[in-house]
Amino acid sequence: MINIDNALNMIYKETKKLGIENKDLLCSINRVLAEDIYSKDNLPPFDKSSKDGYAIKSNDTYSCSKENICELKIKGVIKAGDFIKDTLKNGEAYKIMTGAPIPKGADAVIKIEDVQIKEDKLLVFEQIDENNNIIKFGEEIKIGDLAIKKDSVIRPVEIGALASLGYSNVGVYKAPTVALIITGDELVDITSTIEMGQIRNSNEYSLKALVKSLNAEVLSLGIVSDDKETLKEKIKYGLEKADIVISSGGASVGDYDFVKDILKEIGADIKFSSVAIKPGKPVTFATFKEKLFFALPGNPSSLITTFEKLVKPTIEKIMGKEISNSEEFPVVLKDDFQEEVGREKYVYVEIKKTNGIYYAYKVGSQCSNHLMTMSRANGIIIIPKEFGNVKAGEVFNGKFIFRK
Amino acid sequence: MINIDNALNMIYKETKKLGIENKDLLCSINRVLAEDIYSKDNLPPFDKSSKDGYAIKSNDTYSCSKENICELKIKGVIKAGDFIKDTLKNGEAYKIMTGAPIPKGADAVIKIEDVQIKEDKLLVFEQIDENNNIIKFGEEIKIGDLAIKKDSVIRPVEIGALASLGYSNVGVYKAPTVALIITGDELVDITSTIEMGQIRNSNEYSLKALVKSLNAEVLSLGIVSDDKETLKEKIKYGLEKADIVISSGGASVGDYDFVKDILKEIGADIKFSSVAIKPGKPVTFATFKEKLFFALPGNPSSLITTFEKLVKPTIEKIMGKEISNSEEFPVVLKDDFQEEVGREKYVYVEIKKTNGIYYAYKVGSQCSNHLMTMSRANGIIIIPKEFGNVKAGEVFNGKFIFRK
Repeated sequence: MINIDNALNMIYKETKKLGIENKDLLCSINRVLAEDIYSKDNLPPFDKSSKDGYAIKSNDTYSCSKENICELKIKGVIKAGDFIKDTLKNGEAYKIMTGAPIPKGADAVIKIEDVQIKEDKLLVFEQIDENNNIIKFGEEIKIGDLAIKKDSVIRPVEIGALASLGYSNVGVYKAPTVALIITGDELVDITSTIEMGQIRNSNEYSLKALVKSLNAEVLSLGIVSDDKETLKEKIKYGLEKADIVISSGGASVGDYDFVKDILKEIGADIKFSSVAIKPGKPVTFATFKEKLFFALPGNPSSLITTFEKLVKPTIEKIMGKEISNSEEFPVVLKDDFQEEVGREKYVYVEIKKTNGIYYAYKVGSQCSNHLMTMSRANGIIIIPKEFGNVKAGEVFNGKFIFRK
Repeated sequence: MINIDNALNMIYKETKKLGIENKDLLCSINRVLAEDIYSKDNLPPFDKSSKDGYAIKSNDTYSCSKENICELKIKGVIKAGDFIKDTLKNGEAYKIMTGAPIPKGADAVIKIEDVQIKEDKLLVFEQIDENNNIIKFGEEIKIGDLAIKKDSVIRPVEIGALASLGYSNVGVYKAPTVALIITGDELVDITSTIEMGQIRNSNEYSLKALVKSLNAEVLSLGIVSDDKETLKEKIKYGLEKADIVISSGGASVGDYDFVKDILKEIGADIKFSSVAIKPGKPVTFATFKEKLFFALPGNPSSLITTFEKLVKPTIEKIMGKEISNSEEFPVVLKDDFQEEVGREKYVYVEIKKTNGIYYAYKVGSQCSNHLMTMSRANGIIIIPKEFGNVKAGEVFNGKFIFRK
């Protein structure tokens, strides 16, 4: 039985990126850029007005004031998208819209709110500085400048930035394909009525949702009965077709838990088969050539916990993401919790903030098959392995979980 | 010009849910349950073993100890999924796997690690309590119990819980369809080479990414030129087909900013047309029958900021979600920022934590068309409207943004 940090280090040592794929811009959301993005343009590609107003020569206004009102001749209008060839001369002004190019000869824009109009004349009441309300050519970025660094996560703002630079598709790190093998003769499809001894196959659904929420690909191999040869064939098939194989169930020490035997027989390299966490102790991690294999426990909430703690960071690392460990903070227990010394324990609770302090409330049995408890939880408290029973009023680290 | 809280209150007053739609279980992820989910089963549907071990009668072990080793006759094996009709009698044991049903007559399971086997005899070295290692019938949930409350967000754990209860589809609140109208004669497609006066249509891409990331539907009406009649037709079409219409550009006071005129002409009810935030002041919000209209500014980063502050919470509210305001916390400025008194200012920065304290670093110009600045930012600091220039060392509230 190894501790969680050692387990993660052993997994990370075997984890690497899978190469680069080209994605349509909008489909690249939440993926990680696998290339530095350089600008092929100057942005803005021309001096432009940041306001609705009048393009002028600033030196026409040096003596303007409320007492000495200046008059300029309005020559026309420049809309966004227009480009006029005329050169502005002293004594002249062009009405100009936000985003429109500054005409040649002009060096400032005076806001529409600050002027008055008399027939075709513009009345100016103040001195305007050079470059006033002008966004300069290339001020945002110049040709050849690094725009977005490799390894950046593509958020909506990067989608906008890439679009403005003319990138309609981009190179991102490949997402792994994750094969799912659900073991257990007691499992029936979720639409079935359950007969004596049976339970519904909820783990396949939890796993599909978890893998898809990371933008990885799912290859579900369905329910496999507790028959060694069938299971072996499925595991070999999964390792051939996918980058990661996850089995659920069959990982503890029962007579019909064949996964470890099969991994040995096919020559997989078993790195560990027990992790000191609760829920979730019986987890096997193995490698087979370049492929990764996780045998997770069949209890629904052990499955989700071990996925979150071990598989999720692995998938994120493969896809080039920083590991998204949401931040831990001190939480005051509002209830007692009976636990055992020996493993790091994740207790599913409701965390509420009152007067700036976080409190943890019991939401149900921590028995490892209780999905209902997890479903009522918005966070966990982490009870270190040295601690057993803990009491209301004691303080442990906690964090929010399953948040979007 | 109204402040942001008033603006949000006015919007929320016009916002309501759009009804319920039925979704395949896996497609319901991140949506909000529109119905209370009751259990149609008892879970577990039978007393089951929580360990690999031996099912026994506890009263057979009352005198067992290391000095007085008891022997029980092993009658067979019960795997998960098996159901045996035999009733266990005193002096007998069944080998039993995790998850398998407890046979009639048995009332405890002794772990495999705690026993020894001699031929067909089980050797027991200790007294075992009644119900030891048994998960009782209905312990997780009973028929008719409320399993998951209406208005819960469906996370992977709810997907698992719903599957275990036999729900292959569920009722969730409808997602709004959001029509996008991008105005501006200066805009060209993102694959185009930009000519003098033109810029690429990045706003449509930012908006699509933003709307999709909320799981709402996008109906893009494309770029509309600065022609009043064309724009009017598009706006009418959008209001007919979608629940929310967003226009970008055309919302400030320029001669060719027709949106407000059109809204008045078609009889829309304009609630406000200017909000005291920066970036983003010129925002128009109007209602037309049951439909909502947002005219957002055309500057790319004003657009994203106003979407995040005003449209995102509206869409979340329609879909039944709690508003996901990520939490604000105090941040120490590492740089000076030049700002003006009068509006609440969102300054895009990089927030880093050092020795437990959050610091904000400048990442570029805060000019409202600088997507590159936003792209380098992981957070904002919020400078209240009473403040103008702020200096390194001063402390303001900040928060992380654009995080998954």
